[in-house]
Amino acid sequence: MKMAELVQASGVPIATIKYYRREGMLPAGDATAANQAEYGEGHVRRLALIRALIEVGGLSIDSARSVIEAIDSEVSLQWVFAAAQHAVSTVIAPATIDAGSAERIAGVTQGWRYSPDNPGLLGAVRAAAAFTGAGQTDERGWFGKYAEAAMLAAEADIDELQTREGRSAQAETVVVGTVLGDALFSGLRRAAQEHVTSVRFGEPSGSES
Amino acid sequence: MKMAELVQASGVPIATIKYYRREGMLPAGDATAANQAEYGEGHVRRLALIRALIEVGGLSIDSARSVIEAIDSEVSLQWVFAAAQHAVSTVIAPATIDAGSAERIAGVTQGWRYSPDNPGLLGAVRAAAAFTGAGQTDERGWFGKYAEAAMLAAEADIDELQTREGRSAQAETVVVGTVLGDALFSGLRRAAQEHVTSVRFGEPSGSES
Repeated sequence: MKMAELVQASGVPIATIKYYRREGMLPAGDATAANQAEYGEGHVRRLALIRALIEVGGLSIDSARSVIEAIDSEVSLQWVFAAAQHAVSTVIAPATIDAGSAERIAGVTQGWRYSPDNPGLLGAVRAAAAFTGAGQTDERGWFGKYAEAAMLAAEADIDELQTREGRSAQAETVVVGTVLGDALFSGLRRAAQEHVTSVRFGEPSGSES
Repeated sequence: MKMAELVQASGVPIATIKYYRREGMLPAGDATAANQAEYGEGHVRRLALIRALIEVGGLSIDSARSVIEAIDSEVSLQWVFAAAQHAVSTVIAPATIDAGSAERIAGVTQGWRYSPDNPGLLGAVRAAAAFTGAGQTDERGWFGKYAEAAMLAAEADIDELQTREGRSAQAETVVVGTVLGDALFSGLRRAAQEHVTSVRFGEPSGSES
């Protein structure tokens, strides 16, 4: 398809497509004449991937570019995971980590193999510290259940990517799952919370205030 | 304790404390003289809660105030959940929902009781649409596993709040769990992803690029 058709098929404005092209996030089309190129389904799909990462995943252009580079390079899937994890994680200086919360997270992830600078680990420790700060203990193994849920989701991520053929398709699944999986999970968690409260406490009664 | 001690105990500057007080997010102290009041552990804890919601949960002041109001009011726990869920959810106009993704989410949440305007539901459907847009199917029941993980976390949330004594303490647990639970889960998920990839694919080899 020509550029005008790519614009129509993707819903992305031509200036934006050219910008992604300059940034190396979109492969070149096949040159058919001095000033014309032919684009394919791969280009439409790549544009959808970029838009999903930015609009739904909330990535900055820089972060989106870094994960696209990881997909397009030859680095191992573990590195693609690491790139995607860094793209979606708040950077936290190790100095802000408190020892008690770190121990609490270590306790619920016993037996897991991960590096001490896993970007999620720092986020989990920071969240645990905020729970404690706000007076919330986990008397019934609250955090342990979250760790169990996280492992279930992570296993589903890897199960799914192992159905994909070829490194490049697998790398795309790694990126999409890591970047969009948080939004999918948190949305489902709210629906599940409404279900469980409805089962245990009945329908809400009265007006909102 | 006096205001100066509250500043020290909470680490929150006096101007900010006074601002929270004016906004109705912090209860008054016990007046001990015309221009003095006595504060207690409840005030320290409330300040920690507000800071956790804003700094770790990423809530705006307005959203934090609305969930604090829900805690301090007499509304049922289901309404507190709804307030907390709205505070952490992106507002999505129903017009942007596509039917195929809505069906996909309905499929993995069969038997769950939730209202059609659950704020998480719309987020999950939007995430599902982004997965599809980016070319990602769920051949091995990827989304179903996420739904299972979400239910596990939601049950842990309610188990935990049921150990708390009194409506106000329960409402606090609802708010903290809903607002900070996403950060806890997504952090743990990244550590779990590193564990599972390490188990299935071995240690990453080579340099990052």
